[in-house]
Amino acid sequence: MIPPALLDRARIVAGPEVGEDAARGLARATGRPVARVPGDGPFVYVGATLPDALRGPDLIWFHSVNAGTDALVHRADRPWPPGVPLTRTVGRMGERIAQYVLGWVLAECQSVPEYAAQHARAEWRRLPSELVAGQTAVVHGTGRIGSAVASLLRACSIRTVAATRTPRPVPPGFDAVVPAGEPVAARWVVAALPLTGATTGYFGAERFAAMGGATFLNVGRGATVDLGALGEALRAGTVGRAVLDVLPDEPAAPGDPCWRLPRTVVTSHSAGVTADEDVVTDFTACLREWTAGKRPALAVDPARGY
Amino acid sequence: MIPPALLDRARIVAGPEVGEDAARGLARATGRPVARVPGDGPFVYVGATLPDALRGPDLIWFHSVNAGTDALVHRADRPWPPGVPLTRTVGRMGERIAQYVLGWVLAECQSVPEYAAQHARAEWRRLPSELVAGQTAVVHGTGRIGSAVASLLRACSIRTVAATRTPRPVPPGFDAVVPAGEPVAARWVVAALPLTGATTGYFGAERFAAMGGATFLNVGRGATVDLGALGEALRAGTVGRAVLDVLPDEPAAPGDPCWRLPRTVVTSHSAGVTADEDVVTDFTACLREWTAGKRPALAVDPARGY
Repeated sequence: MIPPALLDRARIVAGPEVGEDAARGLARATGRPVARVPGDGPFVYVGATLPDALRGPDLIWFHSVNAGTDALVHRADRPWPPGVPLTRTVGRMGERIAQYVLGWVLAECQSVPEYAAQHARAEWRRLPSELVAGQTAVVHGTGRIGSAVASLLRACSIRTVAATRTPRPVPPGFDAVVPAGEPVAARWVVAALPLTGATTGYFGAERFAAMGGATFLNVGRGATVDLGALGEALRAGTVGRAVLDVLPDEPAAPGDPCWRLPRTVVTSHSAGVTADEDVVTDFTACLREWTAGKRPALAVDPARGY
Repeated sequence: MIPPALLDRARIVAGPEVGEDAARGLARATGRPVARVPGDGPFVYVGATLPDALRGPDLIWFHSVNAGTDALVHRADRPWPPGVPLTRTVGRMGERIAQYVLGWVLAECQSVPEYAAQHARAEWRRLPSELVAGQTAVVHGTGRIGSAVASLLRACSIRTVAATRTPRPVPPGFDAVVPAGEPVAARWVVAALPLTGATTGYFGAERFAAMGGATFLNVGRGATVDLGALGEALRAGTVGRAVLDVLPDEPAAPGDPCWRLPRTVVTSHSAGVTADEDVVTDFTACLREWTAGKRPALAVDPARGY
């Protein structure tokens, strides 16, 4: 917890990742000035990364403008400063990512890229289409994002199965839950995992070999996937297609092997962008909760990374 | 109505558009033999078109394997034979067309064709994406198809407005209803109209001029659209993009002007394909209803054409 009196006299500092509009929005929403650099005394920092110069006893709270905070807390060289609370921006990310997933699912079923190419060739030919109703999607990751994805897929009558590492009741948006290791006959496998010690390389040769030709979509973190194993699975056909919004190394250079994976599209980490309004809304909500003496719903446990 | 005794002794004849699997399915589902040509005496015909040689007093019922029956009943040279009941196959067409519409809507919002092209160039670049929640879709046509489209769009939090030619209460799947002539600020305009005397050329210069840059999707009938007027609206920007599943003249030849419409994709009349199982299910339902002395729910009024 942050003592309210300390919070009250702390300066709000916005990092370079916070644009002018967002900084003005923060000032308006909180009714407090927003500085670009800390002065003397305690401060709250809003940004994407924590500059080394700002580490120290005056930093009383860090609010991330992103949803994923693994890059902040999992640095071997610079561990997260002990005792500094961390909160994050989720915004309408669940909704955005859910629409991304459904968009790519339906685009495949409706042969969208193929029709676009056919149109460019002035070719009239009926291509196969697929009704998603009754198909099964397995979703790894049952947090806000995974649940939002499942809810939307379900609205199209897709059966949604949560694959979880620890036993739990059926999460919101899902029809069923299975242990992550159990093979499920599915048309779609969606990865929506945070990056932690336990999820690095989580999608490897064994998991891909059990996918039975499903389309694999990663909207979580790039490093949860072993790209070499994915490539082999795509070549073997145990993974039918892949849609990767995230990669272990971003941005991908033109020579990156990811561009040569068969039947794959890489979408440049665009599924869950946060808008200025999201940062303002979520920071303000956290400030309100700290002030009321509550742990914000958007607080991150730096040890777990989410 | 068809007298049950007559129906009982009528032969079931399947036209060339009914594949072997569907013909076997019909025989199995009805428990009656299915012939390929009529013999002597009364017969029921299942097909896409009515061959001239089969017109005559022995034809007691025509079941169309398609949902659209305008091509059957609106022939100037060969009017529909008076007194012959006509039924149609709808199958899961509402669901299929709804998924087609949502698929193309989300594909535009997620820049699917653009990402596919970018991937082919090994280019990492974030493209704009759009959250459909809160956007408005106007749907012309409030029958089974229009309602199915609206229901699915609504599941993505799109506001759905029915544009109707005659005043009526809010149809199922819709948030609101407006007279067809009233301009509505909308991101999407969906055409799901049957082809009748009143809907030919329904989407003309005036209607397109009022669309305010919306994307126009036609999943109804091609001839409800004046393609010349659509071309002008696309060039003027009053229509932002167009997705046309149907055209006034199908199939489009390579030289057809439709291929040169700006920001348009033509998808070869594929949105609402009927599967073999749809024909079997819907024919069997109609047979059951006639036998029980009821007018089938899938009966078409040949004078109205739907």
